[in-house]
Amino acid sequence: MNDWQEITGGVTAPRGYRAAGITAGLKPSGLPDLALIVSDVEAIAAGVFTISQVKAACVDYCRQRLLSKHSARAILCNAGQANAATGNEGWLDALECAMLLGQELNMPSESILLASTGVIGQRIKMEPLRSGIGKLVAALSETGSDAAAGAIITTDLVTKSIALETSIGDRPVRIGGIAKGSGMIHPNMATMLAFVTCDAAVAPTLWQEMLSRAADRSFNSITVDGDTSTNDSLIALANGQSRTPAITEMGAEAEKLEAMLTAVCQHLAKAIARDGEGATCLIEVQVSGASNEQAANQIAKTIVGSSLVKSAIFGRDPNWGRIAAAAGRAGIPFEQENLQIKLGDFLMMENGQPIPFDRNAASAYLKQAAANASKAQDMMATNMSNDLSGDRSTIKAQSLDNPVIIAVSVGNGHGSGKAWGCDLSYDYVKINAEYTT
Amino acid sequence: MNDWQEITGGVTAPRGYRAAGITAGLKPSGLPDLALIVSDVEAIAAGVFTISQVKAACVDYCRQRLLSKHSARAILCNAGQANAATGNEGWLDALECAMLLGQELNMPSESILLASTGVIGQRIKMEPLRSGIGKLVAALSETGSDAAAGAIITTDLVTKSIALETSIGDRPVRIGGIAKGSGMIHPNMATMLAFVTCDAAVAPTLWQEMLSRAADRSFNSITVDGDTSTNDSLIALANGQSRTPAITEMGAEAEKLEAMLTAVCQHLAKAIARDGEGATCLIEVQVSGASNEQAANQIAKTIVGSSLVKSAIFGRDPNWGRIAAAAGRAGIPFEQENLQIKLGDFLMMENGQPIPFDRNAASAYLKQAAANASKAQDMMATNMSNDLSGDRSTIKAQSLDNPVIIAVSVGNGHGSGKAWGCDLSYDYVKINAEYTT
Repeated sequence: MNDWQEITGGVTAPRGYRAAGITAGLKPSGLPDLALIVSDVEAIAAGVFTISQVKAACVDYCRQRLLSKHSARAILCNAGQANAATGNEGWLDALECAMLLGQELNMPSESILLASTGVIGQRIKMEPLRSGIGKLVAALSETGSDAAAGAIITTDLVTKSIALETSIGDRPVRIGGIAKGSGMIHPNMATMLAFVTCDAAVAPTLWQEMLSRAADRSFNSITVDGDTSTNDSLIALANGQSRTPAITEMGAEAEKLEAMLTAVCQHLAKAIARDGEGATCLIEVQVSGASNEQAANQIAKTIVGSSLVKSAIFGRDPNWGRIAAAAGRAGIPFEQENLQIKLGDFLMMENGQPIPFDRNAASAYLKQAAANASKAQDMMATNMSNDLSGDRSTIKAQSLDNPVIIAVSVGNGHGSGKAWGCDLSYDYVKINAEYTT
Repeated sequence: MNDWQEITGGVTAPRGYRAAGITAGLKPSGLPDLALIVSDVEAIAAGVFTISQVKAACVDYCRQRLLSKHSARAILCNAGQANAATGNEGWLDALECAMLLGQELNMPSESILLASTGVIGQRIKMEPLRSGIGKLVAALSETGSDAAAGAIITTDLVTKSIALETSIGDRPVRIGGIAKGSGMIHPNMATMLAFVTCDAAVAPTLWQEMLSRAADRSFNSITVDGDTSTNDSLIALANGQSRTPAITEMGAEAEKLEAMLTAVCQHLAKAIARDGEGATCLIEVQVSGASNEQAANQIAKTIVGSSLVKSAIFGRDPNWGRIAAAAGRAGIPFEQENLQIKLGDFLMMENGQPIPFDRNAASAYLKQAAANASKAQDMMATNMSNDLSGDRSTIKAQSLDNPVIIAVSVGNGHGSGKAWGCDLSYDYVKINAEYTT
């Protein structure tokens, strides 16, 4: 069983964090577009960023900051303009954002990290940003997580938020997170962003290692359409305000904390996959029997990223042939004779050969999973439009409870892994074809 | 300029080949489903096959044959059942097919190569196949290429065929080809198949090397949905019946022959991409300035395989941001500052930054390309249903003449490459979601 419980509060659930989200006038829509997370004290900071050759200014900025200094106090995020492919002017804009916020918060700009999301090729609208910084800082609150979560989204249908609590040495320790993203998706509204806060005290190198592993098991294991953005960023702060003993090396306590960090990242990643454009359900692919975790993950990602598998799930078609074909082309060697495929409780292939199964019942399983997902998503969207300040983490968790499960075994190895994605519907094409930049 | 001309006749255009296609009763639809290509004499044989871990019996069969013997006289292809994931029974069925045909043609079964396409997990319907073999051999004809091309297709909207002629030492040499495939696509109607005939005399190792390189520059450079099938096969015969001097090493004549072989493969590959399920146009991505050809191909394939780029083209949206993002995530290092992007004649990005361009005119370019493609495809489909025995190579070539061109430069390197694909439309989702196995 898991060694933690879900709590409310998002990124402000851990001690010593405040957050805010306001409308500064960056988005043409007039929706909230500027978010801030601040730690009361300098926090250990780690980051994982896009590996694309085409990167936004904020990604270059954070990479440079974190190379020279493994701590930070604030994360500023604007939505509306990605500030990617904007050259030297975009770089200077990023520096100015950090400088302005540092002045307003009375801290060195070196303590500030940046993230942007929005249209590629557009610089941040600096005039409204300059005017908005004071209002943003004034709005900081210990219950500001949902406001921040609402100000970082672009094409997302719902906000993504989670907070978990465990104990270390009999004292509570919390990790919270917010995220945005729904595939690479809309126009150029690229980008997956996630911000994680923690009140444990962790050594910088260890915190970065934990975050990198957690990212591999969460954000790097989801795919909506295979596209990776110019701005993808995962930033995690650990400020020690739980007053628990510092964790400096791997061991029971570090493992406990890393497991909870991974759970936070997995929740946010699944919420992003579930919110994929036009998606009607979340798909979880579980691969076992591979030679190692990396091989298993590779097979899982190939299956969940297959347009044919995704279309079949949308059509509620228990099409094991497409799953087998996707597993086979993942680039990981295995013996065809060892291939086993299950969809939910339905065994469809064993020893590399098809097994008779109840097609109608298997199709009904897919229909039911989509119906459950649709109901939960509607509740979230309604709740979101009714009450942007309320806490919706419970409903959120429910909507991710019943994914379509595809379980594949490829042999007798000890490597296992999971990947998450969504189905491919008419609406995906519609959203992505009919938007004109 | 190209050193060859287009001729009629498909795989029976080269000297010393006959072909046939009949309805044996393998497909539930009652359409032609059994094809045969025979060389008058033993021909040098080369092959390129799926790299999937899940392979059909025919793929294992051909690989084994070509390992021990670099020649063949006949290619038998059935459509309707893929004979993949069918275990030892499927393997025995394949052996029986070769044995039966060998008896009928009065040649050793070692001279027979096999291909299958159709539903994964289904064995070949052996009863109608056994009854059909005699009829198939009786139908062999020096003008039988189109009948064969029509009997290997499954979900294809049009047949794919080409023949080119050049001269070697003042004597004519011909290469013909037929293919099937429209993405991995329909149900489990996987598979891309291509059969190439040549009447030059070429040394076996050289012929295999030429074919492998041609495959990389054609069939391995197309993508419809990124899915690779269990049955993908490219088989090429060279029977020497042109009576030209044997080509035994690389040199001017070998280069000339390889260029024509590559052109045949590229034509067939583009025809497959154009026939992608639900596609409204062919997209050609040209990448230059990379460090080598492989790097350029990798970037080109990533761009043409991006669901976001494909959706944008379907929406006639000149969305350079998605092209830049896809180039950036291809896994090939380049300096963002060197990125240049053109769509048709429209320069959209230079030195890594967006350039103002006429959006309406660029969108009109995309609309026009799709309108041209649609007109040509309609002509082909009409022609195909009116006259299954006629030669349609001229119309086919026209329909591939005006692809949407995306030209990307990533630096000053000498590596360049091309990839082909199609747009992503509502119909892709419809075809793949609504079919129930």
